[in-house]
Amino acid sequence: MNTRTTKAINLGVFEHFQPVLPEEFRDSRLVFLANSAPETQARVLDQVSSPELVVADTMDFWINHQKDSLLRLLPRLDGLMLNDSEAMLLTGESNLVRAGHAVRKLGPKFVILKKGEHGAMLFSDDGVFVVPAFPTEAVIDPTGAGDSFAGGIMACLAADSDHKPGRLRRAMAYGTVVASLTVEGFGLDRLRTTTRQEIDHRLEQYRQMLAF
Amino acid sequence: MNTRTTKAINLGVFEHFQPVLPEEFRDSRLVFLANSAPETQARVLDQVSSPELVVADTMDFWINHQKDSLLRLLPRLDGLMLNDSEAMLLTGESNLVRAGHAVRKLGPKFVILKKGEHGAMLFSDDGVFVVPAFPTEAVIDPTGAGDSFAGGIMACLAADSDHKPGRLRRAMAYGTVVASLTVEGFGLDRLRTTTRQEIDHRLEQYRQMLAF
Repeated sequence: MNTRTTKAINLGVFEHFQPVLPEEFRDSRLVFLANSAPETQARVLDQVSSPELVVADTMDFWINHQKDSLLRLLPRLDGLMLNDSEAMLLTGESNLVRAGHAVRKLGPKFVILKKGEHGAMLFSDDGVFVVPAFPTEAVIDPTGAGDSFAGGIMACLAADSDHKPGRLRRAMAYGTVVASLTVEGFGLDRLRTTTRQEIDHRLEQYRQMLAF
Repeated sequence: MNTRTTKAINLGVFEHFQPVLPEEFRDSRLVFLANSAPETQARVLDQVSSPELVVADTMDFWINHQKDSLLRLLPRLDGLMLNDSEAMLLTGESNLVRAGHAVRKLGPKFVILKKGEHGAMLFSDDGVFVVPAFPTEAVIDPTGAGDSFAGGIMACLAADSDHKPGRLRRAMAYGTVVASLTVEGFGLDRLRTTTRQEIDHRLEQYRQMLAF
């Protein structure tokens, strides 16, 4: 379940979507630009007055078809998330570590490479940080794993207002745990019944699992 | 470079090899049965008088062609190492975590699943332990990564005579570091120039890389 194959994309109403950000969101401190056309992402970002942290997701479709727009967006980002294969596609590097460093050179201050069931890597001023996925036996539906990984990360960063060193690492650990819950149910089923206590408990299990 | 495809196997003199263990090795405390026919591995083990720890490696060829012999060997082992795809082949499980647990039920006290550039997992009484690979930019030749991973593990276990809890985890971290050095050169080139100090230094880098 680790590989996504794009069978067809029909942008539909999304193609000419001009998002208008409601007034109450224009002073958002944190902005997460979920995967969409780089120009749409830029237009949303234009409407936020003074964001502290901007993170975007992207995918192969935009790299293949709207690379110029994407390259214009990247320097405006603090962080970019993308799959391992997409980082290689974007940079032409066949080694993941080199690909991660190369994406950073395109503008974002940090880069998160997602490797599905194999975890994720963070490239930042702080060096390279690697996290395996939380090993779960009950993979029901991988849909939304990447999005909830991002959600866990952004929520953790939003809560961590004192900007302590290592906050991106902690955020990635939280994102990993949230994603591992997501895949244990169909659609949103598992997340819907998840409590904060359960997330913290699994984070502790995860920490023990990695200790040597 | 993460996937091995077996193009052809010619056992040659190996097919009827009857290894005779030199006298001075018969009282070995630790035994590592490198990948070979399960019956050959069993014959070597027969010649060791009272081993404290026996670990074996295996591969798809033996699972496909000499499964019965392999299944007879497994209960004699403390640990078995194999690739992720081989664990799934051996157990019929499509989920790695379930596959790891299922291999343990076949006999070995612990199981190490190797995932190439994605690291490894340990299944033991101590639960599940996951390690990502050490992220190296300079992958020159993956040949021998698995063997030197095993070598690093066995050497670490041999040095760690007090059987402290977590020794398998520490051993896997050492094995990971040694394997990451192996792939940075062709054949044995990189290992030949590696010092103990370099291994310890990289282990410390690795530890920092995983901390959150």
